[in-house]
Amino acid sequence: MARDAIGTMSETPTLESFADTKRLAQIANPQSKIVHFPAHEPLPLDCGASLAPFAIAYQTYGELNAAKSNLVLVCHALTGDQHGANIHPVTGKPGWWETMVGPGKPIDTNRYFVLCPNVIGGCMGSTGPSSINPATGRPYGLDFPVITVRDMVRAQARLLDHLNIPDVLCVLGGSMGGMQVLEWAATYKDRVFSAVPIACAARHSSQNIAFHEVGRQAVMADPDWCQGRYLDEGKSPRKGLAVARMAAHITYMSDDALHKKFGRNLQDREKVTFGFDADFQVESYLRHQGLSFVDRFDANSYLYITRAMDYFDLAADHGGVLANAFAGTKTRFCLVSFTSDWLFPTEESREIVHALNAVAANVSFVELRTDNGHDSFLLHEPELFDTIRGFLSAGALKRGIAGPEGWLP
Amino acid sequence: MARDAIGTMSETPTLESFADTKRLAQIANPQSKIVHFPAHEPLPLDCGASLAPFAIAYQTYGELNAAKSNLVLVCHALTGDQHGANIHPVTGKPGWWETMVGPGKPIDTNRYFVLCPNVIGGCMGSTGPSSINPATGRPYGLDFPVITVRDMVRAQARLLDHLNIPDVLCVLGGSMGGMQVLEWAATYKDRVFSAVPIACAARHSSQNIAFHEVGRQAVMADPDWCQGRYLDEGKSPRKGLAVARMAAHITYMSDDALHKKFGRNLQDREKVTFGFDADFQVESYLRHQGLSFVDRFDANSYLYITRAMDYFDLAADHGGVLANAFAGTKTRFCLVSFTSDWLFPTEESREIVHALNAVAANVSFVELRTDNGHDSFLLHEPELFDTIRGFLSAGALKRGIAGPEGWLP
Repeated sequence: MARDAIGTMSETPTLESFADTKRLAQIANPQSKIVHFPAHEPLPLDCGASLAPFAIAYQTYGELNAAKSNLVLVCHALTGDQHGANIHPVTGKPGWWETMVGPGKPIDTNRYFVLCPNVIGGCMGSTGPSSINPATGRPYGLDFPVITVRDMVRAQARLLDHLNIPDVLCVLGGSMGGMQVLEWAATYKDRVFSAVPIACAARHSSQNIAFHEVGRQAVMADPDWCQGRYLDEGKSPRKGLAVARMAAHITYMSDDALHKKFGRNLQDREKVTFGFDADFQVESYLRHQGLSFVDRFDANSYLYITRAMDYFDLAADHGGVLANAFAGTKTRFCLVSFTSDWLFPTEESREIVHALNAVAANVSFVELRTDNGHDSFLLHEPELFDTIRGFLSAGALKRGIAGPEGWLP
Repeated sequence: MARDAIGTMSETPTLESFADTKRLAQIANPQSKIVHFPAHEPLPLDCGASLAPFAIAYQTYGELNAAKSNLVLVCHALTGDQHGANIHPVTGKPGWWETMVGPGKPIDTNRYFVLCPNVIGGCMGSTGPSSINPATGRPYGLDFPVITVRDMVRAQARLLDHLNIPDVLCVLGGSMGGMQVLEWAATYKDRVFSAVPIACAARHSSQNIAFHEVGRQAVMADPDWCQGRYLDEGKSPRKGLAVARMAAHITYMSDDALHKKFGRNLQDREKVTFGFDADFQVESYLRHQGLSFVDRFDANSYLYITRAMDYFDLAADHGGVLANAFAGTKTRFCLVSFTSDWLFPTEESREIVHALNAVAANVSFVELRTDNGHDSFLLHEPELFDTIRGFLSAGALKRGIAGPEGWLP
């Protein structure tokens, strides 16, 4: 068996032996800014319950201008977090959008004040299922309420209130980040000057729910999940979560990309071994993806956040008509999809564009040709960079925000 | 939690409590015909080892004619077996190709003698990892040699020898069955009059290897897998195998089919429950698929047979040029693909057609328009029925086999 086979570890490691000591530390004391909303300021949730107290961990890059008009809100995807453009405190690697956010980059921190919050339900400091339940003094586990994308956005709006920032120059995000963008535009119409939903949909498809369900069942099938109480038991459902990540990771790439990257190439060997070792590079790659993921992510957060995505259905929340969600909007929209994204295919973006057209919204739509699949929004895609730089800049100029050289039209 | 949640069964059931007592009985004593090849007639394998003794369990339908010219060999897919056209002894349900095989059906048993063997590595009576290892007197487990599609076909050729049938009027199969068809046509050129590879490829793609690897890791992550020795331990990795099946099952359908069949419909409820119960029909359906699969299939067989598919690369076995595999062929080919099959897309069939054209083979190619995805070959697809009926009949007439009414041209 390969050393990195996730299923063949012969002993159940103790929590201390995990590489995730650093990760667990982030839940209570994140290496980022954090706002604690006290118990008397609860967050109402779509499920009917409230979350109180609650915290939002976040990062900022750049400076808020005097007019408070240059806020760019970056919403992360399923397994992302607030560390969009700094070295990640757990992995030691660059942030997930470091190609996009920074001085001189498409989301130029010399020009914009970038805010990147960890979602409610997450595991990097914002309140989630691994946070302490004030009612018991123990981690919530499955007692954490099931949250929605709208709950995430509602929490972010509270963060803006707290920071005393009235509105957003632009809200951007890919995948579940794009769902948050749509929810922002629908729920807080007056607070969103422009919006960039990337590689997303107005409702999670049947196939996508199916893939999420596989991932959740993989986690729950792991006896170390302990019915969600693994933190109490000093365990961690690493194998189950790794399997979930492996399945999901395939959906983030394209068949073509996998073919070009790996084909049927063998991993460090001349011939197949006639065994269950990782003969093929693609197997080794997937195992690595699974194993490295569990070092940085919490299993229950994975359950809750996938569930939030499953529940997302913006039309259903507005009388069954998607256009209703955007009625009266003055927000400037730019939608982006990728030709090889089979998780959120272009057709899903087109439906949103049609709904926006139906309410005469200001909308651009760009389908970018790439082999990189759904994950394109995280990768080096020059056309995406150009699109976002240009759209942001046009909006900024319209709002009277000076360009990098102080230039104003 | 739903009663049918695979991950939330609170106790590890004993083997006796499983619905698979019937299944286990089939390994040693299948309810079908079976040939036992004695130890002095070993089956040489691609890995270099030999299998001895070995058995092949099979079913037949119809009668062999006096000229022995009307044999139709049906090759099953990954989780199929010899019970193609009879009530399955474990599930009590009709065979997997009962729409296709029978009196008056496209593969007309009034006209043809149909032979359907269980593959080597399987779990319905042909020798596989759950069979008794003569060296130890215990089930093989991971001591079973890793087999290939060619090994499966080599075993089938031995079965034909044993039955004293020189050649095959037609060899047909979908998915891994199609791989066997290609291997038959390449390895036993003089024994294959015609061949129908359906929804398959000449080599397993990177993405498909990736999905198989997820499934194997899901099985191996289940502690009840016991490093492959679960039968010795009186256990069964039911949860892991169910997760593997759920992931695989998504790939057998199409996004459109899932959307049409389930959409975002809720399962027996008016509203989402804000929990991890199977709120959506597609979740309930997948859980059911996972759970019913483990009642009829062996976990180690799943590992071995997926591996055989991963290893399949017909061009690599013939100097890197697919056409070489078919050089000099006189076989009549009919390839079939389905528009919505994203596991084995049409392009894969087209590559085989190109290779066959390069050696001036007699080849037809049909791409059928359907929403039913990869599984189309198992479903009610009238155009597929017509294609197979017509192609078989044309070949039969050419071979002087009378039609249903005794009609000959």
